[in-house]
Amino acid sequence: MLEAARLGEAARGRTAPNPNVGCLIVKDGEVVGRGATAPGGRPHAEAVALADAGTKAKGATLYTTLEPCAHASERGPTCSTLIPEAGIARVVIGIKDPDPRTAGQGIKLLKAAGIEVKTGVGREFSKDSMSGYLSRVERGRPRITLKLALSIDGKIALPSGESKWITGEDARAHVHLERASSDMILVGRGTYMADQPKLDVRLPGLEQWSPRRALLTRGEAVKGWEILSSPKDVYRLHDVNDLLVEGGSATATAFLAADLVDRILIYRAPILVGEGKSSVGYIGLDAIADAHGRWKAGDGSRLGIDRLEVYERVRN
Amino acid sequence: MLEAARLGEAARGRTAPNPNVGCLIVKDGEVVGRGATAPGGRPHAEAVALADAGTKAKGATLYTTLEPCAHASERGPTCSTLIPEAGIARVVIGIKDPDPRTAGQGIKLLKAAGIEVKTGVGREFSKDSMSGYLSRVERGRPRITLKLALSIDGKIALPSGESKWITGEDARAHVHLERASSDMILVGRGTYMADQPKLDVRLPGLEQWSPRRALLTRGEAVKGWEILSSPKDVYRLHDVNDLLVEGGSATATAFLAADLVDRILIYRAPILVGEGKSSVGYIGLDAIADAHGRWKAGDGSRLGIDRLEVYERVRN
Repeated sequence: MLEAARLGEAARGRTAPNPNVGCLIVKDGEVVGRGATAPGGRPHAEAVALADAGTKAKGATLYTTLEPCAHASERGPTCSTLIPEAGIARVVIGIKDPDPRTAGQGIKLLKAAGIEVKTGVGREFSKDSMSGYLSRVERGRPRITLKLALSIDGKIALPSGESKWITGEDARAHVHLERASSDMILVGRGTYMADQPKLDVRLPGLEQWSPRRALLTRGEAVKGWEILSSPKDVYRLHDVNDLLVEGGSATATAFLAADLVDRILIYRAPILVGEGKSSVGYIGLDAIADAHGRWKAGDGSRLGIDRLEVYERVRN
Repeated sequence: MLEAARLGEAARGRTAPNPNVGCLIVKDGEVVGRGATAPGGRPHAEAVALADAGTKAKGATLYTTLEPCAHASERGPTCSTLIPEAGIARVVIGIKDPDPRTAGQGIKLLKAAGIEVKTGVGREFSKDSMSGYLSRVERGRPRITLKLALSIDGKIALPSGESKWITGEDARAHVHLERASSDMILVGRGTYMADQPKLDVRLPGLEQWSPRRALLTRGEAVKGWEILSSPKDVYRLHDVNDLLVEGGSATATAFLAADLVDRILIYRAPILVGEGKSSVGYIGLDAIADAHGRWKAGDGSRLGIDRLEVYERVRN
């Protein structure tokens, strides 16, 4: 299931509003089919993996991170129908689909077709890999990642506004990978005015996965950009699973103050800026004690001379 | 020699103005004696290790991180005399002593006594373990470490000044270990006025290693505290190998602006403070490009939920 979750994770940012599912078909201990939700959301991972396996699917076990769909669509047949037709003997599922159109119906259909079904295997991997989709279905908004490129002392720019470059090439390439895994990127009006950023993916072979661009502004619309007038507008983004907020400071502050950040990526450069622009402004904190317990640090990693720190919001 | 350097490292902060040397005596593949410079600087590591080995020193090999001393003292005999007297057959040395009273004379005396001498083995370990002593002898000032307890966004306190506690117990215990490895701790007048910190070592068994305390201030003297009126006064600290600067922001800024910091310890808590006190003020930086290449990040480590980041000043 870990392998299936990896396949699904690799499709993140390109399947919304559909989930980025991963699927593996195994027969006699050998992987005979692999699939992930295709760009745009169709075909589904199971259909891709079944096509990959061909006749070898007969009698095989199918691993999928999400319960196969039970709802018909003009864009393709239901996976819960396709799977028995291909002769799959056993289906192992990471998590049930919270989409009310499936929500257990897929499992029922498979069992009715005489297939052995096991659910909850590799549950955590599966959830992690589809965290954007699950956030949208269960909380009504995308999973939101805030990216900040900071100095040791937490600055994003000199007093003049100069910020090029805090971090090095490896860190910037990693940002482009994160963009490719997002359905939408958002910046504030200030960043737009200062940099007119393209926010595209500049990695060989991934250029076509540049996400939609959004501006946080109460001002006028800008051609080629979607507009959010407040962080709470994320609840209107019904076709965005993963949203990447790239700053600057006012935008980061607005999202943090609204408690609308699920994950923070800090690209930390080994430099001191001293007097300069702080990364985050007033976020409603009036006592240090209240700051604790909100963020859990991941292991982090090196990116050239910089370091990536990953923090996940702890919600109870 | 790594083991000898570890013994020496453990004595750091308690031997100034003498070096914190480590020494190991090996005979027939077995360690028969261990020593480090004793608190206060005497007896020397070699004398301690020879006493530990007793008659087993005869025909053995002595590993020492620093060239044995050649200068007589009222407080004890010269190591270059003690070693041949104990019957040591071979001496392996990390680095030559830059102290002009020894500077090669120790090696000459040993060779004249018929002992085989090898120098430069484990050179880097040896240098690292005595970096404070070497800084004092070669540059005329202590090795200076700046400690900062910071949030993700680089803040040391709320706007109110509240800073208790940014970091957790494990990080604070680690600070006490660093204090025990320092000859002197320094804070600014502001920190003194706000906190009246004891700056002592509150670790079981290490309480007696609380270092001397100093204040950075142009104001009046305070009982029990030494006074530095400017960071450049570190050049007058002839009996301090390792100096720990514990802040606050004005003091950190003054030392960084004077380029008088060799190592930075960041105790990073997984919290966001937002609006608050920045850790570092104007340090003379007018372009981001000039900030690069000055600091090299070490591997860092976890301290409970916090993280220790270590940065070393790159000097060419």
